[in-house]
Amino acid sequence: MPVFLDTAEPDFASRFEALLTAKREDSPDVDDAVAAIISDVRARGDTALIGLTERFDRLALKPGGLAITAAEVDAEIARVPPADRAALDHAAERIRAYHVRQMPTDASWTDPEGATLGWRWTPVEAAGLYVPGGLASYPSSVLMNAIPAKVAGVERLAICVPTPDGVINPLVMYAARTAGVDEIYRIGGAQAIAALAYGTESIAPVDKITGPGNAYVAAAKRRVFGRVGIDMIAGPSEILVIADGTSDPDWIALDLMSQAEHDESAQSILITTDAAFGRQVADAVEARLQTLERRAIAGASWRDFGAVITVADLSEAAHLSDRIAPEHLELCVEDPRSLSRQIRHAGAIFLGHWTPEAIGDYVGGPNHVLPTARSARFSSGLSVLDFLKRTTLAEMTPEALAAIGPSAERLASAESLEAHGLSVAARRERLNKSGQ
Amino acid sequence: MPVFLDTAEPDFASRFEALLTAKREDSPDVDDAVAAIISDVRARGDTALIGLTERFDRLALKPGGLAITAAEVDAEIARVPPADRAALDHAAERIRAYHVRQMPTDASWTDPEGATLGWRWTPVEAAGLYVPGGLASYPSSVLMNAIPAKVAGVERLAICVPTPDGVINPLVMYAARTAGVDEIYRIGGAQAIAALAYGTESIAPVDKITGPGNAYVAAAKRRVFGRVGIDMIAGPSEILVIADGTSDPDWIALDLMSQAEHDESAQSILITTDAAFGRQVADAVEARLQTLERRAIAGASWRDFGAVITVADLSEAAHLSDRIAPEHLELCVEDPRSLSRQIRHAGAIFLGHWTPEAIGDYVGGPNHVLPTARSARFSSGLSVLDFLKRTTLAEMTPEALAAIGPSAERLASAESLEAHGLSVAARRERLNKSGQ
Repeated sequence: MPVFLDTAEPDFASRFEALLTAKREDSPDVDDAVAAIISDVRARGDTALIGLTERFDRLALKPGGLAITAAEVDAEIARVPPADRAALDHAAERIRAYHVRQMPTDASWTDPEGATLGWRWTPVEAAGLYVPGGLASYPSSVLMNAIPAKVAGVERLAICVPTPDGVINPLVMYAARTAGVDEIYRIGGAQAIAALAYGTESIAPVDKITGPGNAYVAAAKRRVFGRVGIDMIAGPSEILVIADGTSDPDWIALDLMSQAEHDESAQSILITTDAAFGRQVADAVEARLQTLERRAIAGASWRDFGAVITVADLSEAAHLSDRIAPEHLELCVEDPRSLSRQIRHAGAIFLGHWTPEAIGDYVGGPNHVLPTARSARFSSGLSVLDFLKRTTLAEMTPEALAAIGPSAERLASAESLEAHGLSVAARRERLNKSGQ
Repeated sequence: MPVFLDTAEPDFASRFEALLTAKREDSPDVDDAVAAIISDVRARGDTALIGLTERFDRLALKPGGLAITAAEVDAEIARVPPADRAALDHAAERIRAYHVRQMPTDASWTDPEGATLGWRWTPVEAAGLYVPGGLASYPSSVLMNAIPAKVAGVERLAICVPTPDGVINPLVMYAARTAGVDEIYRIGGAQAIAALAYGTESIAPVDKITGPGNAYVAAAKRRVFGRVGIDMIAGPSEILVIADGTSDPDWIALDLMSQAEHDESAQSILITTDAAFGRQVADAVEARLQTLERRAIAGASWRDFGAVITVADLSEAAHLSDRIAPEHLELCVEDPRSLSRQIRHAGAIFLGHWTPEAIGDYVGGPNHVLPTARSARFSSGLSVLDFLKRTTLAEMTPEALAAIGPSAERLASAESLEAHGLSVAARRERLNKSGQ
């Protein structure tokens, strides 16, 4: 059973705090192992990758055989059922349409003192996308990472996806092809991250690495951060549903289970103004847990980390939601737009009874790579901005330098940075001499 | 003497590569010491801060004496010369005007399938700004970090600035007051970062920490990353000047020295189409190094990491510049706008003969916190976006769910996530029953 809380109870504050701070994930210390793998790949390149792939994925690669060729991709794609292709095409189209709107604009203006200022956005040249192998090898994640990169204008997008025992996921290949991925390598783990960051004989290095992965992949991303850019280090998935009792309890139960089935460390929380409704949802969850294919995983998540919280009103719900700062937030209430305006910290909000979170995982359009573990307080989901960077621009006329230069000289002097001041003063002296 | 390279020489490629990859900074391994300091602050709060401040800053604080009070700030500010105040006011006004233009806009639209989609930006609630003590305690950095935070809408902005031997920098206090900083604490080092991230009795925790610092501060920021957001970990400063020989060599020499004087690990590079001009600049540097106050630092930086590179034409210069991906790039050429369009990777570009980089350090308007160590390939300078986060929004109508739900169900099935599919299917069944 999940924990049941009520804001009216005297010990609510401490129990809620305990829920917020509960550690949901063991972080095995793989840092030394990862450091050794990265060193090995830097030193021995493809040879190291081949050895590590044989060891971890039970797959003997030939030199030159790291890439999955276009012909192999063709062959895998041929095995994808037409209905799966159509669904993935539909998703890709909607994700692309959403992310195109995120493209930021350049700016340039001349201010009253004569300075022309602005900025310009440019794409990262090369990006690498990690795709986990096995059960968690999700075609939808390929779309969610690759499409923003391509919309941003990344020229070279490489995927690393391990293929344990040589098994390739055909729909992952189809997603990569659909999203415009340029290169695919059958390697995984920390060795894949090392190859993307440092390059080997057959894999050119990239500038940015994104995508989910296990503890080895996460530790490797932390280690190469700085040499390349990385996206967030994602924790286990979370959903918070705020419900006023006007939904079908079974719908809410399924929404909670759609996070819980990801991972035993996932967390599903219901906040409701209606205690009886909360109990109905919990009952519906128990009923669904009798039959769900992934009931072992979903049941463990719900038992260990699930919660049903009764609140006095929706304002209280919004307040608690901001303290949780959920990755996914469903507002299953009569007036979701009004409630959404009271929410400040959430990765993604799903409004109303007809927007189950699973829509957002696949075909809604917004990205499903979102901040976990309360990091929505300070960070955002993946977007085209993750594959762009901004260069600021400044151009002074002689008149502008005359107008603002003296303040720069004064501050340089206050900071004891003489050459800074002189670099401005030398130019201003020329202006004075030339009578400008 | 700096290194002189010429793209026409046969060994240019390898010598340029050596320049790119030269290690400019020793990173002392302070990680264990930092871990211990963070644990101590988490365990003992203010008591730990007081002990560490006595040890590192030779300053005995009383309990409750960590904050620099408004009255103390008033007293310090009274010592700031009016001309310094006016210069700082001028800088603050221009920095604010630039950053206001960076504010992103929210979006909401309804697409052809009936889904209402969009996003909303909200500010981080509380941010902490680290300001180094001693020589590198720069009022301009206070403005560059605090103004974007306040423009973004951060409600609570706390500064930590160590005051070794109790010495407070009055202009730092004036900058903090001008920028709207809410709280100032006289603590520094890893202990300040720990206090901002975890909170103590007298310092409430923040959500985001920015600002430069020494190896201890950098290691502490890496450690608390995830619990709070952090900005980049900045390396030593860099400038690249591209010159076609139409500038005064002494101006370029001063621009190069204005980076070199920051730090012995700073790097100043000149790329020119005119080898004779390159020699004139190098001679002008030597002349300036006879008298500059910080000639020991600037001379060491120029000797160890300076470079003068002769190229055949400006296109070659632009190409090399992108490989360097400089923090600061000056285009001291006749047609800087045309050249700037050939540049892709740079933190900030300063166009033309009248825009010395030092203008950008103080009063240009764009931020002076910029990506170093080639990270302009994948990252941007500080901006209001660092203090904002984006929540994505999605709302389906029954019709929209009917239109896009089946694709979500198909993909959920392909990914073996049954509850995901059921959460959509259960709602669609209701629609079918009700004849919608």
